[in-house]
Amino acid sequence: MTIIHSSSPEIRAVDGGLGVVPGLRTAACASGVKPEGKLDLGVLVTEAPCTVAGVFTKNQAAAAPVQLCRELLAKQRTCRAVVVNSGNANALTGQRGYDDALAMVEETERLFGGPALPLSTGVIGVPLPLETILRGLTKCSQQVGDHASAFAEALLTTDTGTKQAARRVELGDGSVFHVGGVAKGSGMIHPNMATMLAILATDAPIASPALDSMLRRVTDSTFNRISVDGDTSTNDSVLALAQQAPGETEIGECDPRLLPLEEALRQVAGELAEQIVTDGEGATRVLEIRVHGARWVGDARAVAQAIAGSPLVKTALHGGDANWGRIIAAAGNAAVPFDVEELELRVGEHVVFAAGMPIVAAQDAAERAFQRPRVRIALRIGDGEEEVRFLTTDLSADYVSINAHYRT
Amino acid sequence: MTIIHSSSPEIRAVDGGLGVVPGLRTAACASGVKPEGKLDLGVLVTEAPCTVAGVFTKNQAAAAPVQLCRELLAKQRTCRAVVVNSGNANALTGQRGYDDALAMVEETERLFGGPALPLSTGVIGVPLPLETILRGLTKCSQQVGDHASAFAEALLTTDTGTKQAARRVELGDGSVFHVGGVAKGSGMIHPNMATMLAILATDAPIASPALDSMLRRVTDSTFNRISVDGDTSTNDSVLALAQQAPGETEIGECDPRLLPLEEALRQVAGELAEQIVTDGEGATRVLEIRVHGARWVGDARAVAQAIAGSPLVKTALHGGDANWGRIIAAAGNAAVPFDVEELELRVGEHVVFAAGMPIVAAQDAAERAFQRPRVRIALRIGDGEEEVRFLTTDLSADYVSINAHYRT
Repeated sequence: MTIIHSSSPEIRAVDGGLGVVPGLRTAACASGVKPEGKLDLGVLVTEAPCTVAGVFTKNQAAAAPVQLCRELLAKQRTCRAVVVNSGNANALTGQRGYDDALAMVEETERLFGGPALPLSTGVIGVPLPLETILRGLTKCSQQVGDHASAFAEALLTTDTGTKQAARRVELGDGSVFHVGGVAKGSGMIHPNMATMLAILATDAPIASPALDSMLRRVTDSTFNRISVDGDTSTNDSVLALAQQAPGETEIGECDPRLLPLEEALRQVAGELAEQIVTDGEGATRVLEIRVHGARWVGDARAVAQAIAGSPLVKTALHGGDANWGRIIAAAGNAAVPFDVEELELRVGEHVVFAAGMPIVAAQDAAERAFQRPRVRIALRIGDGEEEVRFLTTDLSADYVSINAHYRT
Repeated sequence: MTIIHSSSPEIRAVDGGLGVVPGLRTAACASGVKPEGKLDLGVLVTEAPCTVAGVFTKNQAAAAPVQLCRELLAKQRTCRAVVVNSGNANALTGQRGYDDALAMVEETERLFGGPALPLSTGVIGVPLPLETILRGLTKCSQQVGDHASAFAEALLTTDTGTKQAARRVELGDGSVFHVGGVAKGSGMIHPNMATMLAILATDAPIASPALDSMLRRVTDSTFNRISVDGDTSTNDSVLALAQQAPGETEIGECDPRLLPLEEALRQVAGELAEQIVTDGEGATRVLEIRVHGARWVGDARAVAQAIAGSPLVKTALHGGDANWGRIIAAAGNAAVPFDVEELELRVGEHVVFAAGMPIVAAQDAAERAFQRPRVRIALRIGDGEEEVRFLTTDLSADYVSINAHYRT
């Protein structure tokens, strides 16, 4: 029996996003896809080759860059660069869209080294202004460096601010690694997944199969547990890059170092997911939904998702009106069987419904809880062991006006 | 071989609703459940006993009157009276709610004759003010007569107007029957079913099993093909009553007279469904969705429903913005496999997307089509034979404000 003398690993939140990860360089510019000189093109380059994993939209009408990413990842699991444009999703653009995405990748590889992966976000059904983007890439190539915040900004569409998060992981053996992430997303947010792009990166040399299964677990418990408007986009993508610096020992599936690294990745992804919801289009309040007592986690998730997606729950939340009857009515639409007599609904700490009846004495306290910026509810649907947490936003008149004239 | 000399049956739209059906009497009053003296209680009574069929919400948290209706219909398929209150849904009100619904039924039977069936609509999770309703029933009993329009008004909640429709059916054998209907519903409208109540009635003596299967078919192609906000309520109910006047021959499953009567019922239900969508909360435009080329009707329905429920489609509709990319993105979320290359999307008469590509020349015409009060789109998803039509509304800031403060 071998005893390894080591202290327990420590994960610490640090300021910044991708910028905290050594060996990453970034560039961003205003190529002209977006009007008014806004940043709309970003490139991320790594010094060492990376293993890479990706999780993509389940939408049947996946955009050209998503199709291309899938193809490239099926062939090889390494990566040196990621190129992202905002302002145009390159979705529903046919063969030309595919050719354009490929041209973006090839030009990125020529200027920055490769393999490269492409991401796009923005309006659907409009051909990509390829020449504009290619000229932008040249511009980016002249200023590669430490521009993680500008890169984060170049991803945005209707977002009101950048989304970044990072962790420093001190492993028990004294080695230190970093996990950084960046995301964008504000509307069309719903599992699977949000209309969102996220790039996570680490300097820990995680092996390809381990990175892949880790990313799937992390995405499932973070980005797939948020909802803004119930729409799954054509472009949703999460990429994870793990740099393999020369001389480092690869971290495989059974390596004990993987656990704290996965936890750090989950914290970064969780923080980004939270930032996406908080910045939901027109959002003024966040609803934190806990569904527990389920026999299967899928049941808990379906009920949470039905509540999170209900326009009536979301408008009541907007009005600060503890109209909890709508919460149970929405739960009842999830096609998950439950007995109304067994339900227990809490708003904050207050039980407002139990044994099939409203608890009249709790209504005033519930009303006050619904007027806070963050409202917590917990619905017990039975005596099972499974539970799920889910975040959603209110539905406001601002959401309507943002989306009624998105293209104009 | 017997030859029946008969002309073909004729169905004619007539003004009015339940009022056109001979042998029906109605009453309505302002009992006080709703503030400000609005009509909120109605009773429908028939001279002859009726066969009756009902279709109810699939919500797991079905309201007390729905539970009671189901129980009563399981015991007997005859009915003489329907009692409806608005302003309070008697949903999520536990044993007391059930007892209250039963008390409504018993008092109705005592005053008007029975068997009676109860319906309720309004706010969820608030105990029914039973004494108020019982006093109201006495008031109603003093003025039973030809008050179909007042009865229609007593059903309403956020509706801006009554919903009524009627048909006169002249059968080939010279006999004449009538089908009348009334409905309410404006928010929480989504299959299955809308938050809606509907009562359909006829003086044709349709036998109980025939009426039941007929009502299911009719509901499926009318009330289950509309969406306002994707929420299925706790109280959705459709009742159909067929009077069995003494001396008339019952119309059974194989009776040729059933076909024109079913068609008349479908027309009445279809017209009511259309009135519900047009009066959708905050609605300013109606979207008529046709999904065709499906291999299975369930596929067509799932795609149509995904489009009808998408907040991004509904806000684009509100803005009169032909952002058709969102239509295909929503279709892609229905979990129905399709090939983007095989899709064809028409806005009005104009093909805007085909062979995987936008048809650039059609965009201006599509933009104009999206600015009409009724927008028609057709999406071909393959080369199958099945199709579905579906109606939905736009999502407006008014919807938000109506629902943000519904209880206050």
